[in-house]
Amino acid sequence: MTTPPPHTATTPPVAPAAPRRGRLHPLGLTEVTLTGGFWAERQTRNAAATIPHIRARLESEGWLGNFDLAARGTLPEGRRGREFSDSEVFKYLEACAWELGRRPDDDMEESFRDVVRRVAAAQEPDGYLNTMFGRDGQAPRWSDLEWGHELYCLGHLFQAAVARHRTHRTADDGLVDVARRAADLVCRTFGEGGIERVCGHAEVETGLAELGRALEEPRYIRQAALFVERRGHGTLAEIEWGRAYFQDDVPIREAASLRGHAVRANYLAAGAVDVAVEQGDDALLDAVRRQTAHAVARRTYLTGGQGSHHQDEAFGEDWELPADRAYSETCAGVSSVMLSWRLLLVDGDPRHADLIERTLFNVVATAVGADGRSFFYANTLHQRVPGEVGDPDATSPRASSSVRAPWFDVSCCPPNVARTIASLGAYVATTDEGGVQIHQYAPSEIRTTTTSGDAIALRIETTYPDDGLIRVLVVESPASPWTLSLRVPSWASSADLVEPDGRRPVEPGTATVTRAFQPGDVVELHLPIAARVTHPHPLIDSVRGSIAVERGPVVYALESTDLGAHVDLAVAAGTPTVERDGDVLLALAVRDTGDAPWPYGTPAAPAPPATHVRLVPYRDWGNRGPSTMRVWIPTGT
Amino acid sequence: MTTPPPHTATTPPVAPAAPRRGRLHPLGLTEVTLTGGFWAERQTRNAAATIPHIRARLESEGWLGNFDLAARGTLPEGRRGREFSDSEVFKYLEACAWELGRRPDDDMEESFRDVVRRVAAAQEPDGYLNTMFGRDGQAPRWSDLEWGHELYCLGHLFQAAVARHRTHRTADDGLVDVARRAADLVCRTFGEGGIERVCGHAEVETGLAELGRALEEPRYIRQAALFVERRGHGTLAEIEWGRAYFQDDVPIREAASLRGHAVRANYLAAGAVDVAVEQGDDALLDAVRRQTAHAVARRTYLTGGQGSHHQDEAFGEDWELPADRAYSETCAGVSSVMLSWRLLLVDGDPRHADLIERTLFNVVATAVGADGRSFFYANTLHQRVPGEVGDPDATSPRASSSVRAPWFDVSCCPPNVARTIASLGAYVATTDEGGVQIHQYAPSEIRTTTTSGDAIALRIETTYPDDGLIRVLVVESPASPWTLSLRVPSWASSADLVEPDGRRPVEPGTATVTRAFQPGDVVELHLPIAARVTHPHPLIDSVRGSIAVERGPVVYALESTDLGAHVDLAVAAGTPTVERDGDVLLALAVRDTGDAPWPYGTPAAPAPPATHVRLVPYRDWGNRGPSTMRVWIPTGT
Repeated sequence: MTTPPPHTATTPPVAPAAPRRGRLHPLGLTEVTLTGGFWAERQTRNAAATIPHIRARLESEGWLGNFDLAARGTLPEGRRGREFSDSEVFKYLEACAWELGRRPDDDMEESFRDVVRRVAAAQEPDGYLNTMFGRDGQAPRWSDLEWGHELYCLGHLFQAAVARHRTHRTADDGLVDVARRAADLVCRTFGEGGIERVCGHAEVETGLAELGRALEEPRYIRQAALFVERRGHGTLAEIEWGRAYFQDDVPIREAASLRGHAVRANYLAAGAVDVAVEQGDDALLDAVRRQTAHAVARRTYLTGGQGSHHQDEAFGEDWELPADRAYSETCAGVSSVMLSWRLLLVDGDPRHADLIERTLFNVVATAVGADGRSFFYANTLHQRVPGEVGDPDATSPRASSSVRAPWFDVSCCPPNVARTIASLGAYVATTDEGGVQIHQYAPSEIRTTTTSGDAIALRIETTYPDDGLIRVLVVESPASPWTLSLRVPSWASSADLVEPDGRRPVEPGTATVTRAFQPGDVVELHLPIAARVTHPHPLIDSVRGSIAVERGPVVYALESTDLGAHVDLAVAAGTPTVERDGDVLLALAVRDTGDAPWPYGTPAAPAPPATHVRLVPYRDWGNRGPSTMRVWIPTGT
Repeated sequence: MTTPPPHTATTPPVAPAAPRRGRLHPLGLTEVTLTGGFWAERQTRNAAATIPHIRARLESEGWLGNFDLAARGTLPEGRRGREFSDSEVFKYLEACAWELGRRPDDDMEESFRDVVRRVAAAQEPDGYLNTMFGRDGQAPRWSDLEWGHELYCLGHLFQAAVARHRTHRTADDGLVDVARRAADLVCRTFGEGGIERVCGHAEVETGLAELGRALEEPRYIRQAALFVERRGHGTLAEIEWGRAYFQDDVPIREAASLRGHAVRANYLAAGAVDVAVEQGDDALLDAVRRQTAHAVARRTYLTGGQGSHHQDEAFGEDWELPADRAYSETCAGVSSVMLSWRLLLVDGDPRHADLIERTLFNVVATAVGADGRSFFYANTLHQRVPGEVGDPDATSPRASSSVRAPWFDVSCCPPNVARTIASLGAYVATTDEGGVQIHQYAPSEIRTTTTSGDAIALRIETTYPDDGLIRVLVVESPASPWTLSLRVPSWASSADLVEPDGRRPVEPGTATVTRAFQPGDVVELHLPIAARVTHPHPLIDSVRGSIAVERGPVVYALESTDLGAHVDLAVAAGTPTVERDGDVLLALAVRDTGDAPWPYGTPAAPAPPATHVRLVPYRDWGNRGPSTMRVWIPTGT
């Protein structure tokens, strides 16, 4: 594949990623508004509950206060939090910026500005900004690239500044200047002839690339490219889990798969796509395409979650996907969406949008509790022991979150989800020379201008994913023909498209309607939303002989709350699923524990008769108190 | 169950564990000699290769040198190794002591004495002995009970001293005095009113108890009891994995299962049995029995291996037994044998001997390479990626040992195996008031004296486990009747016993012959050694729909070397096993990888036709270069 020529659009979109070239051009928050339904409700909750909760925790944990201590010159005494706590403050700023761009709010604006002031006050004259390093009594700047996270934190600062710049170009809060000074320092320090190493946690690459795009500063993009190319040459120390943890084992152009720490791997790949797109580097793009396809085919959970090792928060080997030890970190889901979106923009392949949808509904939506103030850090597919409801004022160990927790010692996930949900509108639709493409289905209004200056306005009406009807109403249209493209998810094997000329079946992939649309024209996509049984690839040992149930893009789960027994005793039997009164039911038997002094020997006894038991959308599990849960249900004996 | 009265035997056995009471009384190294076969060969290799290799590494890694630095007063400068490296030196001493007790050797004796001299020179006047703590520039003594391992190291010192004391009571090397001074310090420091806490890593409990038995010093046993009782009350800090890691979450009398770090859990339980037996504490014994039975029934691998978490080297939850992420640390196998042996002595239940046999043949024997100089730290049941042969002079990360490594940064396993193999003779047979019990079958000579002063001498002739015939020749016998007991393993469902009066079938458990034996009498046990198919308990998700092959006590494995393809492509089909020319063959098909962009959807295609492929004893895998390997083979599709 080759990269397309640069976009001709004059104004970059108000969106987290605004590549200069690609098959598709994103429509940002000024062009797409979520008007209701599943994701709009989550945006409302995000603004009302999650973002203020994060602010309160950043304050009470002292992670914001660290900047005040830095400004007063009293660090390191009193510093609180882990070495990367600055980044949570920056992700909070990014979440606020997107949310304010979506829907201005005086209180949030004031909170945002207050935090920017405190952050800016901690920046040193040469642009350095980190509360953990460089002062008397602290380790020197850049002295612990493996674990120090300085560049990682700055990457999140850059993304926050990009969000502010794109949503509020005339803002006088100073965040963009703070980022620019820090980015200049990074270029001076880590440019050619400087410290020719990388940060243990990728993130600065995509942050720098996007800042370079936003501020039209090619130096930042070149620095991002340097970081991408340097990694894989062993400039980081060997550690117990190997340099693959940092993706520093093999250069990115040579690696066969995403590997190592899953969040790092996805952030790095996202940054590599950014760099490749800006530099027209087909070979680098091909490398990322290959690695991503490999990881999706062999190292990804049904939910879209990634990472099967608790120890190193890493991808496992091919097919190493234990349901019960799924790590599937929330941040890995967020970073996977970032990578998929970039690949979708450059290639237009709807499979990337399929994975985004799957990951949003089953990882990102799962990570946040119904209250908007509790979170999963890890998203297991099988909970064997009911969790315990903890002290709401305490922090939790990150990975044992069998009950959603209000905060974590390592609390990367809550603000990562917040910034994603606030900017979700930017992942819905794109344009190209020929028209508009809709990738995610939610009640929304889309308004854009073609390259010839004509307005196109669409209204999407749907209750998806509860129902499979997506209705696209043309509100405004140029007189000349253009093409409306609608994604048909890979699971939608019997979809229909109804356009003004009639109804026709459409295949999974992309369905298009090309015509001179009139205002009032309606195109309907009918997706076959019905509970379906899903089988795993036979090489995934952990779920062999089991089935899962999905309905549209939604993965279902069995909770002990509904079974009335430990979920491990359930055996799927007979005609598997029915739907009744909106519930998805599965025919299940409850087997005897069959305890024996030694658990190996003869075949298991047949399962007893089955009854129908309700499954819940996986994203909703754990909202009714502690329970056991499993996504994959054994069949037969 | 109640504990039996104290033994009436006058001389304690020359064995690692010599409880004062129990249904069975161990026969030590002066009474049992392995004369050939599987384990005698490994004892020879242990003495010729493994023990000298350990000595060389202790020297080259500087872990022995740490004691010299301590004696010179120059620590902490130049100290090398982790905080527990002293313990490897002590385990080396224990291995030498047992080996010298088994078969004197001038070179090894000199090496042993040299190390004792260097260790003794590092002991401080008040008895303190640890190279990591307590000096200027080091953390204070006992200041890091969670991770410092000071008491753990001393536990191994005590076991070494016990080994020396029992094998060479008149030795003038001074090791026993070193241990006595250290034990006295421990009692002064950690007695009632002292530091009322425990060590993060259990081990001092069983070490103190055994030292107390050997030196007839009840204070040591009381101190061991204090440590056992104190644990579980949260005197150690909360950590990310919870206090269960240290078994400090729940008092031992209340816990439902072995849990947390598998080595710590087994050492603690072994120490608790020691204490309970000495104090006649039935309630404590019952607690350990219950926890051990639970762990064996639900948390143990087919190999006898324990521990399914890499992150915290811990037992997983019930049924959480991933084959591919099996940790099954070698030291967990060693410690499980220690615990099982103690329970066998107190209760006489042959199931404990079954588990010892399983663990010896499939964990302990697996851990050592054919050269005697390479080791597995973790013993996975499924290797997905062939390992790489490393630098023979380097050390390896502990848990990624897909190829046996010469040494590890954390090198607890090699000396732990060495001390176990050197003392194996002590796990073969016991006596009680009524006669002799044989628990493990190996060519051996047994000679003991009954309580009435009569000699019993037996010769065991067998090629077990290659063959199932165990021939017990009576060499000497009192004139009065006594009982010969032979363990019938739980898998031996059609065993026969041939005694002077004829042949009869015997059930798994214990087969007995009571008579007035004459010299020349022969008793034969015929065990049905033939490859058999084993099914997993249906609640073990990771191996559902799979079978394993066992033959006698030996677990078999499939290696890519024999399949000519990645083992994950194998599907078991048809009549599963045949034996031909001494090989165990399994009918296997090799399926297509069936790669798809998304690994979930429709059922797998049926497998192609099968051919017979050789399996290898699991213990032998990885001895023919890097390979993929699996114990559990999927059946059907």
